[in-house]
Amino acid sequence: MEAEKLIAEVKAAVDNKDKVKIKEIFSQLYPADMAELVAELSSQELKFIIPVISLEKLAFSFSELDTNTRNVLLNFLTPQQLKVVLNEMYSDDVADLLGELTIGQSKELLKLMKNKDAQQIQKLLGYDEESAGGIMTTEYLAVKDDKTVEEALNKIREISTKTEMIYYIYIINPNKDLLGVISMRELLTADAQKKLREIMHSKVIKATVNMDQEEVANQMSKYDLLAIPVVNNHNQLLGIITVDDALDVIEEEATEDIYKMAATSEFEITAAEEGILSGVFKRLPWLIILLFASMLSGTVIGTFSESLSEVVALAFFIPTLTGTGGNAGTQSLAIVVRGIATGDLDRDKMFHHLFREVRVGATTALICGLIISLIAFFWQGTYFIGAVVGLAMFFTIITATLVGTTIPFIIDYLGADPAVAAGPFITTLIDVSGLFIYFSLAKVLLQHL
Amino acid sequence: MEAEKLIAEVKAAVDNKDKVKIKEIFSQLYPADMAELVAELSSQELKFIIPVISLEKLAFSFSELDTNTRNVLLNFLTPQQLKVVLNEMYSDDVADLLGELTIGQSKELLKLMKNKDAQQIQKLLGYDEESAGGIMTTEYLAVKDDKTVEEALNKIREISTKTEMIYYIYIINPNKDLLGVISMRELLTADAQKKLREIMHSKVIKATVNMDQEEVANQMSKYDLLAIPVVNNHNQLLGIITVDDALDVIEEEATEDIYKMAATSEFEITAAEEGILSGVFKRLPWLIILLFASMLSGTVIGTFSESLSEVVALAFFIPTLTGTGGNAGTQSLAIVVRGIATGDLDRDKMFHHLFREVRVGATTALICGLIISLIAFFWQGTYFIGAVVGLAMFFTIITATLVGTTIPFIIDYLGADPAVAAGPFITTLIDVSGLFIYFSLAKVLLQHL
Repeated sequence: MEAEKLIAEVKAAVDNKDKVKIKEIFSQLYPADMAELVAELSSQELKFIIPVISLEKLAFSFSELDTNTRNVLLNFLTPQQLKVVLNEMYSDDVADLLGELTIGQSKELLKLMKNKDAQQIQKLLGYDEESAGGIMTTEYLAVKDDKTVEEALNKIREISTKTEMIYYIYIINPNKDLLGVISMRELLTADAQKKLREIMHSKVIKATVNMDQEEVANQMSKYDLLAIPVVNNHNQLLGIITVDDALDVIEEEATEDIYKMAATSEFEITAAEEGILSGVFKRLPWLIILLFASMLSGTVIGTFSESLSEVVALAFFIPTLTGTGGNAGTQSLAIVVRGIATGDLDRDKMFHHLFREVRVGATTALICGLIISLIAFFWQGTYFIGAVVGLAMFFTIITATLVGTTIPFIIDYLGADPAVAAGPFITTLIDVSGLFIYFSLAKVLLQHL
Repeated sequence: MEAEKLIAEVKAAVDNKDKVKIKEIFSQLYPADMAELVAELSSQELKFIIPVISLEKLAFSFSELDTNTRNVLLNFLTPQQLKVVLNEMYSDDVADLLGELTIGQSKELLKLMKNKDAQQIQKLLGYDEESAGGIMTTEYLAVKDDKTVEEALNKIREISTKTEMIYYIYIINPNKDLLGVISMRELLTADAQKKLREIMHSKVIKATVNMDQEEVANQMSKYDLLAIPVVNNHNQLLGIITVDDALDVIEEEATEDIYKMAATSEFEITAAEEGILSGVFKRLPWLIILLFASMLSGTVIGTFSESLSEVVALAFFIPTLTGTGGNAGTQSLAIVVRGIATGDLDRDKMFHHLFREVRVGATTALICGLIISLIAFFWQGTYFIGAVVGLAMFFTIITATLVGTTIPFIIDYLGADPAVAAGPFITTLIDVSGLFIYFSLAKVLLQHL
């Protein structure tokens, strides 16, 4: 509601060529709101607005823009304006922006930046996108260890507008080795003449530059940090990661896990603008692979078609057997995948967890087996069906629990993301084994009747 | 590795009764690490350590302890020691702690606190656990609007150790109405004699006390906030929520969604200590409900058992048909559930999204239908099976896409969490409709052959 009112106000101001009003509206906007607003304006309206508003402010909302609006703006701004915007933006945001453009566009923009900044950005672009280096910013606050509290506070006053996070001060030596950290809270209450090295914490929670972004975010969450320093293998300070980026990482990784567990590729929603073909390409390959995999189940049934012709009622229980097995497997899987992602379940705890799962699985298997056995007996009126269905359910759920628990652990152990053990793959595997158990039991029992 | 070394060191120091060493080790520990360490110590060891270490430090790690260790400590500390710990802890952590205890225990602990603090905690306990009020802390930094920058800085120096977040200063009037906010960064660089009301931002991003915690966390993520003020309906400041709690909320809600989508109850891993029965109770009810639901599919097959007896090969394609339908539905579902959770997909965008899904669904349905149709034809050598399986697949995938997209939207509209439209329920529904389509087609075509 409020957003619509705002858009209408801005459009009216443009119609009236009311520069004062526009300046006033934009001066009060938060970057995220400005990004949403700009997305709703036409090129004509932007043309009028851009020269009026502060480019510094536009710079801060640049990293919040959707792809379309960002491209419109990039084509729209003069090189002189772009220069101001790029030099205002934090280095991690510039690197993210350039990483999404073509090499040609990226080079053009780098030319507009100060030489030193451009070099820094190019370094950032060299790191893996999902590593600490890929999300860190190079605007941090570092002070030499022999400076005093007073000197540090003066430096902060001086450079605070150019720094993304001024609430942790990192202490380094001339070689840029990370020696310690002091929070602004401690600095404010410390004796002004003390040397920083006397009051710093020398045990610093830090990330190495190649660390996976999810691990970094988990560390920040564990230690309640507002920022974490990033160092190279020689403990030299390269940058910091701020907590807002950790929030984005945790949200992004959870989305990725959920999509992987549903066997679709990540970031569907941001791709919504890209038309339906991109949606088809992101889902169809998985569906086709899984379709072929599920034909294994068909082949199992085909192999036992004689037993099935003899007792057609065996087919009635196929959906329940495969469905319940799949559900039990997915439950076990979800717990392990999520546990590994949040760091709650590490390899040390694996055997303990597996042992617990086996017992939980055996108990649920027994109860579900009994229930379906009774249903089958009363529906079909024969002991044969009751026994076959019940036993098959029992063994299928136990298999499902084992498969759902161990496979993500194995995938994690092999160094891949356990969420790729996507639910559908596990359930397809459980389908095949469940049906094999079911029809084998049926065949054996039929021969002995 | 490092953790194990640390535990060994502490245990050795206890054996040697080396108080100096223990003091030294604990003085360097972060709260989260201290919590992990304390969990590994025996009661005997704790008995020796507690009087040696600083209770203030123990207080900070209290909220990071697992349930077992926390209970051990609660029984272990003297009322005098507990008093120190409780008065050091932030109010949101105390409220979380008391919320997990019995009313009797909770009352005992409240008696140990200062009267004013105890009243505040009781108020916090009154809010819904998953609302802004339920996760906020009452230790914030508020200054009257007629104070100067210098006065504010002096106040911060004075009370900074008692406040969870000193990097945003909230500006209030004598009625405690929230008027504005100033960041520490701005305060440090502002003219010392200016009044706060002259330099504050009066457009404050804030949460109301009953707002859902997930919405609060999304707001903090959107605006990159380190803390968000919580107000009542009269805009009076009640507390703040810090970004570390937002991180926890986003992680917790993602876990909850993943578990719900896998049809198991939340927080399995924390319950790992509670023995297998709790695991069984959290999963079995869902499995049984779904088992009965899936019997609908069995009933559909049963209804068409004549057609099935005539062409047993129809059964071979049941797993592929239901499996692929379920996978397509889960893909659509995951995108909507996650989009609603992160706020990327709101109700305004629903029809646009549904329209896109229909087209994506129709395209994938066509291709999957053709593939399975060809497989069926070449395997079974009859046009009949090829046509029935292909058509059934086409209609099932379209149904699946529609069901997977609309049901979470409807559930959200009804005010419930769309993740309860758990994957398994959707897939069971898709199974039933897919099998009905399949066997109806088969019956009709069989009659006309």
